[in-house]
Amino acid sequence: MSENQTSKEGCSCCCSKAASMLPLFNPKSVAVVGATEKPNSVGRTVLWNLISSPFGGPVYPINPKRPSVLGIKAYTSLLECPGEVDLIVVCTPAKTVRGIIAEAAQKGVKGAVIISAGFKEIGPEGAEMERQLAVEAAKTGMRIVGPNCLGIMNPVGGVNASFAPAVALPGGIGFISQSGALGCAVLDWCLDNGIGLSCFASIGSMMDVNWGDLISYLGEDENTKCIAIYMESIGDAPSFLEAAAKVSPKKPIVVIKPGRTAGAAKAAASHTGSMTGSDDVLDAAFKRVGVIRVTEISEFYSMFNALSRQPLPQGNRLTVITNAGGPGVLCTDALLLTGGVLANVSKETVEELNTFLPSAWSHSNPIDILGDASPDAYAKTLQVAGNDPASDGLLVILTPQSVTKPTETAEQLKKFGQIEGKPVYASWMGGGIVAEGQKILTAAGVPVFAEPDTAAKVFTTLYNYKKNLEAISAPAEPTATAEEGAKARAAAAKIIDGVRASGRTILTEYESKKLLAAYGINTVQTEIARTEEDAIKLAEGMKFPVVAKLLSETITHKTDVGGVKLNLQSPEEVRKAFVEIKTAVSNNPKWGPQHFQGVTIQQMVKQEGYEIILGSSLDGQFGPVLLFGMGGQLVEVFKDKALGLPPLNTTHARLMFEQTKIFKALKGVRGRKSVDMKALERLMVQFSLVVAEQPWIKEMDINPLLASEEQIIALDARVILHDLDTPVEKLSKPAIRS
Amino acid sequence: MSENQTSKEGCSCCCSKAASMLPLFNPKSVAVVGATEKPNSVGRTVLWNLISSPFGGPVYPINPKRPSVLGIKAYTSLLECPGEVDLIVVCTPAKTVRGIIAEAAQKGVKGAVIISAGFKEIGPEGAEMERQLAVEAAKTGMRIVGPNCLGIMNPVGGVNASFAPAVALPGGIGFISQSGALGCAVLDWCLDNGIGLSCFASIGSMMDVNWGDLISYLGEDENTKCIAIYMESIGDAPSFLEAAAKVSPKKPIVVIKPGRTAGAAKAAASHTGSMTGSDDVLDAAFKRVGVIRVTEISEFYSMFNALSRQPLPQGNRLTVITNAGGPGVLCTDALLLTGGVLANVSKETVEELNTFLPSAWSHSNPIDILGDASPDAYAKTLQVAGNDPASDGLLVILTPQSVTKPTETAEQLKKFGQIEGKPVYASWMGGGIVAEGQKILTAAGVPVFAEPDTAAKVFTTLYNYKKNLEAISAPAEPTATAEEGAKARAAAAKIIDGVRASGRTILTEYESKKLLAAYGINTVQTEIARTEEDAIKLAEGMKFPVVAKLLSETITHKTDVGGVKLNLQSPEEVRKAFVEIKTAVSNNPKWGPQHFQGVTIQQMVKQEGYEIILGSSLDGQFGPVLLFGMGGQLVEVFKDKALGLPPLNTTHARLMFEQTKIFKALKGVRGRKSVDMKALERLMVQFSLVVAEQPWIKEMDINPLLASEEQIIALDARVILHDLDTPVEKLSKPAIRS
Repeated sequence: MSENQTSKEGCSCCCSKAASMLPLFNPKSVAVVGATEKPNSVGRTVLWNLISSPFGGPVYPINPKRPSVLGIKAYTSLLECPGEVDLIVVCTPAKTVRGIIAEAAQKGVKGAVIISAGFKEIGPEGAEMERQLAVEAAKTGMRIVGPNCLGIMNPVGGVNASFAPAVALPGGIGFISQSGALGCAVLDWCLDNGIGLSCFASIGSMMDVNWGDLISYLGEDENTKCIAIYMESIGDAPSFLEAAAKVSPKKPIVVIKPGRTAGAAKAAASHTGSMTGSDDVLDAAFKRVGVIRVTEISEFYSMFNALSRQPLPQGNRLTVITNAGGPGVLCTDALLLTGGVLANVSKETVEELNTFLPSAWSHSNPIDILGDASPDAYAKTLQVAGNDPASDGLLVILTPQSVTKPTETAEQLKKFGQIEGKPVYASWMGGGIVAEGQKILTAAGVPVFAEPDTAAKVFTTLYNYKKNLEAISAPAEPTATAEEGAKARAAAAKIIDGVRASGRTILTEYESKKLLAAYGINTVQTEIARTEEDAIKLAEGMKFPVVAKLLSETITHKTDVGGVKLNLQSPEEVRKAFVEIKTAVSNNPKWGPQHFQGVTIQQMVKQEGYEIILGSSLDGQFGPVLLFGMGGQLVEVFKDKALGLPPLNTTHARLMFEQTKIFKALKGVRGRKSVDMKALERLMVQFSLVVAEQPWIKEMDINPLLASEEQIIALDARVILHDLDTPVEKLSKPAIRS
Repeated sequence: MSENQTSKEGCSCCCSKAASMLPLFNPKSVAVVGATEKPNSVGRTVLWNLISSPFGGPVYPINPKRPSVLGIKAYTSLLECPGEVDLIVVCTPAKTVRGIIAEAAQKGVKGAVIISAGFKEIGPEGAEMERQLAVEAAKTGMRIVGPNCLGIMNPVGGVNASFAPAVALPGGIGFISQSGALGCAVLDWCLDNGIGLSCFASIGSMMDVNWGDLISYLGEDENTKCIAIYMESIGDAPSFLEAAAKVSPKKPIVVIKPGRTAGAAKAAASHTGSMTGSDDVLDAAFKRVGVIRVTEISEFYSMFNALSRQPLPQGNRLTVITNAGGPGVLCTDALLLTGGVLANVSKETVEELNTFLPSAWSHSNPIDILGDASPDAYAKTLQVAGNDPASDGLLVILTPQSVTKPTETAEQLKKFGQIEGKPVYASWMGGGIVAEGQKILTAAGVPVFAEPDTAAKVFTTLYNYKKNLEAISAPAEPTATAEEGAKARAAAAKIIDGVRASGRTILTEYESKKLLAAYGINTVQTEIARTEEDAIKLAEGMKFPVVAKLLSETITHKTDVGGVKLNLQSPEEVRKAFVEIKTAVSNNPKWGPQHFQGVTIQQMVKQEGYEIILGSSLDGQFGPVLLFGMGGQLVEVFKDKALGLPPLNTTHARLMFEQTKIFKALKGVRGRKSVDMKALERLMVQFSLVVAEQPWIKEMDINPLLASEEQIIALDARVILHDLDTPVEKLSKPAIRS
């Protein structure tokens, strides 16, 4: 793609990122700093790779000690190169790199790939060297890939600025790897399986060029049909999320990221020198921006295989054509368990198949065309079934029975292997007998999977990607007008400012509820009583029974100090409760009278309905993270919860709810009516807005939120602020830029 | 194996089954009925397979129309064959088979493989033909494999009595397939991957030889190290379970069985003509007898790969050796998520590795020996780490980086690839560059997996098999003496007989509780009151509050007719409740006064603790199946349950509990004390004994069973019997023969 094309398309913000990547992937000239003839050295391999895969411009070896390297005239420094240099590849020791980058900036170099290791991954000293590089590069806006990477490739443009063993085939997949070694393995696998790439980038320690830059670039690159990522750490999360959210609706983004277990996260941390965040949060973030996450390497390969050769399915109805029942049944299990369905075979299709198939064919899906199916029967069946509008994709299974002709069948089938808007997959099962047929189909653009159940799961994974994209972009309902929003923000900020002004970071339950109420969240009526008489008066103004709870500016776990008295039926019981709470706090050796600021009197709410928890806490990489889940005494046993990133709209809220089991109960089970789900969505959105708009909030929860068919009401709430002296840049900030 | 050897070893019951299989797999002579020269015909292929893989005896073609077939003298009938015939392979149309079997019986043939189709799978007419075959065979005890199968092989003995395209390599896996086509694919895959079999059997419709026969045979066969099964239906469940329980402790049994989803089960049913049972029950049955169930074909292949080449792991501690961090992290995830752990690298091992590895090696597991690891470094590391007693198995990962030597590394590594009692697996990642190394390792008996995470899962799958075996065979505690048992059986039978004598099949709640009490299960005190006065007197004899419930010999859902009155605080409330229940039933248009036999008065139990359900229902294939799970209003939302087969011992009961989440709660959460788990185990065992010993019980449940730290008590119970005229053979019968 030329710069010219890029500037015509796309949005301005992505274009600037994408445009700054062009000198890296489409350089007109390249210098190799540290080029050498030493066998097996990186400097030699990089130079050799660049010249043996011509991209159309000159390559300058930089080596102060030699007149030439590998027969090409060498220069003592970048500044001596005769023409402009777009890109440099740096292969020299870490301590030399700062000077090279400074020189490159002086020369007007636009991009650098730093292969050298010995930076952030070795500790603080290395991190400081990285910081200095960044300062030098920032002077001219030079973009840097690495350090500590394998290099980059643009196989379509013929650029191989890496020390990988071989250049990739040109093709449609943009592959970014945070592990050079895994990158090598995947590149070799791709070569062996005839899969082409539009780009390969070993991203190294991401001191400058990061996920967001590369995703934006590949999103604009017309050769790239989809993006595949091996990720160890997300780094700048907002940048990743913004780019991924923009690109995923037009190009699938597949990510494999280890660290699902604490043990693996630890291994990764010691490996890359970067902290990994909570994996559940990462999952929620990926869902929010439409990224396809796979967990096994074989799935990652399967995605390359399917996405490089076939279109995405438009629905979840798969048609299976097979010469045996067993494999059809196994793949039906896989299909149904992952969200797919067997396509109905329409009456017209059945009639057409009847004209040439033996009468014993299954007459339903899986379309079993029997053990002696001929190549011709296979080909015709695919042609006919492929035209059935009730099908969204096809899987052709062959088992090598006594009269089966795997090679001839592949040969005849291949001409029907590309259908507009529907993927066609194949599974030629077995070993040596089916190998030639597998090659024929692969070469014809029909991906072959060793097992049919794998193929079925690929189909549903890609369908689920599409479904998730539709879900996250579904229209949402407004929850407040701009005026209401501004009013809520101001009222809440005032409460928070007041608490901070009094030197506190913990809101009382009373203040917490007022804060929620400012955003329109329904809370149980709660009033402050400083004296026994006040308490009785307030209780009499409500309806008995009431609840009395400790009012304290310092104690958050009220139950632990005997600070909660439920089900008070009379003025006398209220008086007694007041005295008991006061005495308990005052006589508590850990606390004392100064921690008692009175009690709150609240209406006792009938405990019918479901107890729910809403929460927000800070993640090291994603900032505030929301939680919705089942509450009650079995909360830790069932761990029935969903996470989300603020701010939410009502659609996002509903998608969170749908991930929990308690959602089914809320919608009504065993004759109970449904909770007002629309109201619950609005409440969740408003809760997310408190978190997104009030940066001083560090933690917040409503526990429990009582949801029944009559009402949804916060019974208790807790808000904790950042330390008073927290600098602005350390306050809570959502990773989603809305 | 010779007959002589078999009779020396093993138990008598298995031996008779196993011995009857010998003429099938070790025949001294074979006749092919329907042998022909017609190209591509089954009769020709079977004959050709038999003569091209010599087993050491004669093969007789039977063909009334030809003097010879493929150059071998043919005979017009079995009776004309000059010598004894051990085995016949029948390839003629279904309607001819009965006569052939009759003739074979006359000739003294000991085994028959019926390849012909057209029996049970075509409907009632075919099923009747099968029945007739069975009658003929039973006359002489001839064993029959099939009909509708691909045939059988004994690759070690050189027997290929099938029409599969090629004979398998000799080896240690006994493979039984219920799908001929899938069998062909697996056979071809095995050939291609150098995996040998001790036996292949295409089991067809199992009219005679079934899973139990073949498992018993393979259990005795000294060439067989493990058994792999593709199953579509279990057929005679008790036979399978008995054989599997005996064989699995000495030889792993791996089963892949589709039908996990209703859709697939339907597809399977239409395919094989046999009904499949509930998949959850099947899972429970497999666990009970130590079978390894895999769900994906790729896992099935992985099991072949691992089990044919390496020993089983003795523990769950895996050591990973790698030249790259990323793949190590990915496989750590897979390991930890499936029940494995990373082995600690002992101090001694670290010191020894320090003597030859570069100082930057990881010094922990995964043992990262860095990107430039030499073949020698790989080999020495495996040798040293393999000796570490803190490790139960090793996985060596190689990624093809610039200076990596995949082939030479494999060559050097292979001599350390067999360690006594510890499996060694490898993952040479990539494509063409690593292919040669993969072949070298495979040939040396080190299984190679394309992805390291797959290898880690294979390791834990095999460890989990071992762990499950240990668990199910752990010592159990006795729950009752023989005398107590006999007394319980008699008392319960008397209650049931009484109900049946009164012409009923539904026990009242009162009777149900008495039945449970007979087996020592604690139930809430429940007394019958026929009049208001009785009710009050009984209530006064207990402690208020009490509960009044409808006593009816016909109505089981008491709540629906207003038949349950809780929390009655006084004699007056008891009187009112009696009248209300009586009136409600009498005035109910569906029922009437004749359905009111009084009320039961029960102590009102404080509802603290957890509500649990125990149940038993009939499965079509496994007979009575037990259920243990969380009760309460969210039962259908959380579906937190485990299934089991009666009779249980306390170990089995505990294993059932451990599969549920409520188990964690029962053991005590959030400061609550544990329920008496030993008592709960005993209760579950006694519940299972009621089911196992009382064949008239069709369904039974306790719902709820209230479990708290103070007590475990059945609050309500329901028992339903079989219809009064049910013949003995249709009564409930556990699939587990104890």
